[in-house]
Amino acid sequence: MINTFEVTILGCSSASPTPDRHPSSQLVNINNQYILIDCGEGTQNQIFKYHIKFSRISKILISHLHGDHFLGLPGLLSTLSLNGRIEPLDIIGPPGLQPFLEYFCKVSETHIKFPLNYIETNMYGLQQIFTCDKYDIYSFPLKHRITCTGFMIKTKAGPRKINKAVCDKYEVPLTAYNSLKAGEDYAMESGHIVENKILTLDPQEGKAYSYVSDSIYDEEIIQYVQDSDLLYHESTFLHEMLERANETFHTTALQAGAIAKAASVSKLIIGHFSARYKTLEPLVEEARTEFMNTDLALEGLTFAV
Amino acid sequence: MINTFEVTILGCSSASPTPDRHPSSQLVNINNQYILIDCGEGTQNQIFKYHIKFSRISKILISHLHGDHFLGLPGLLSTLSLNGRIEPLDIIGPPGLQPFLEYFCKVSETHIKFPLNYIETNMYGLQQIFTCDKYDIYSFPLKHRITCTGFMIKTKAGPRKINKAVCDKYEVPLTAYNSLKAGEDYAMESGHIVENKILTLDPQEGKAYSYVSDSIYDEEIIQYVQDSDLLYHESTFLHEMLERANETFHTTALQAGAIAKAASVSKLIIGHFSARYKTLEPLVEEARTEFMNTDLALEGLTFAV
Repeated sequence: MINTFEVTILGCSSASPTPDRHPSSQLVNINNQYILIDCGEGTQNQIFKYHIKFSRISKILISHLHGDHFLGLPGLLSTLSLNGRIEPLDIIGPPGLQPFLEYFCKVSETHIKFPLNYIETNMYGLQQIFTCDKYDIYSFPLKHRITCTGFMIKTKAGPRKINKAVCDKYEVPLTAYNSLKAGEDYAMESGHIVENKILTLDPQEGKAYSYVSDSIYDEEIIQYVQDSDLLYHESTFLHEMLERANETFHTTALQAGAIAKAASVSKLIIGHFSARYKTLEPLVEEARTEFMNTDLALEGLTFAV
Repeated sequence: MINTFEVTILGCSSASPTPDRHPSSQLVNINNQYILIDCGEGTQNQIFKYHIKFSRISKILISHLHGDHFLGLPGLLSTLSLNGRIEPLDIIGPPGLQPFLEYFCKVSETHIKFPLNYIETNMYGLQQIFTCDKYDIYSFPLKHRITCTGFMIKTKAGPRKINKAVCDKYEVPLTAYNSLKAGEDYAMESGHIVENKILTLDPQEGKAYSYVSDSIYDEEIIQYVQDSDLLYHESTFLHEMLERANETFHTTALQAGAIAKAASVSKLIIGHFSARYKTLEPLVEEARTEFMNTDLALEGLTFAV
């Protein structure tokens, strides 16, 4: 049963931070298990600022090795270790990430006192990189200046729900509930079979959050994020900067809205804003001309998936 | 002529930051030429916060390669490059620093578009690592868990000052002023020699700022920081934590005060506070029992040297 599936924005700036915007980082909360997506410089301070419990982070996903997406990771790992963490941590990211962290630990003589499980992403289409009874994590390739992936976190559909009133009417014993939840029919003592759909209600549906960190406008993305309940898509520039967006392999707000529309997502949030924009309203207004249900992924905001 | 010689604190926490304390970094301003000392994670955001002009930074000194003293450097260099810097930057630090930064640039495909001049510190006593007409920079060895140096920045004594009234009395021409400032006597047309000290006033004295980043209590330091106008000394713990201080090669507030007293400095500021201390007053009160003219090196404060 998924009671909580939400995303808190910790950083929404592009490569150059601003006085009030930090580089990329987001925290996904699934039933109080935390997944950190990207970890720009200063992420640990943002975690403090928003009173997030470090100990609940079980996974860190890194989209790519531009500094604004991973330079907060060595410091965060050091702090977790200093604070006595012993639980393993999954680090999911591109091939160069593990050697970089090992190099940092060597040069700084830092000893991380808990196990790090590295899982490498790759660029070969949609890849399942983690699964458990509650959710799956997938990566998918993005077209950026260096190897880069997006991520999708998808909760699993829950078990069928017991319709207590109907079960009581048919005198179904509690011991049969688990098989009902699993979708099985119920055989009464008389031999009469009661169909599962009479005794149960439809399960909680799985939901999907998709994260597109840094990418040029790319229609290939649509298939990966199709029908997501929430899509984060970078929107570094306004469309008047299209040429610059193409040169730097970034997306405009208009293009992000177009991707959201084509992928029929339920909601779009945009971020990774260029430092040139003092006010961000024009970006969200531009995206809304393509896809109305768009919001700014501002730091400190939490979005339900 | 040195009009400004001051230090602004950008970070005052030890390895684990807190919600309102950042890892080590300080900005030294000498006549609007800036020298950054240490560059913990988030330093570039602190530079923004305190409205410091990035472009004026000409040197970055790194004391050692623990993450809380240099993890802000790759991001800062990237931002300077993105912002169009072309002026060279001196990077002064221990031997592993250059390879680390080069490794980061390689893995992240980051191209720093201005020249970096690396200057390596060493552990062989007091070393002059930079000199110009206004000031000298020295490094000196500290006893920490890894190779680590402190720094001293010392402005040069100014030229002797012209005593205009007396010069006029002796009808000294303006063309002779430069040699007077350089300390030479003046020969009148009559052949009479007027001693320099009659025609000039004592010059502006040089001043010294000493920085002791991370160190166990070490009386060797006294000789290096002797008579400094301003001494920053780490004070990670209260003296009741002496055992922990020794284990981790850090200093207590009481010990920092004792170093300041023995070195006859004019003023002491303490920092690098353990995250365990919610309030810092007990640390400064403890240091003052040894050396009264002590202040907390709190973020955003500026101290004249």
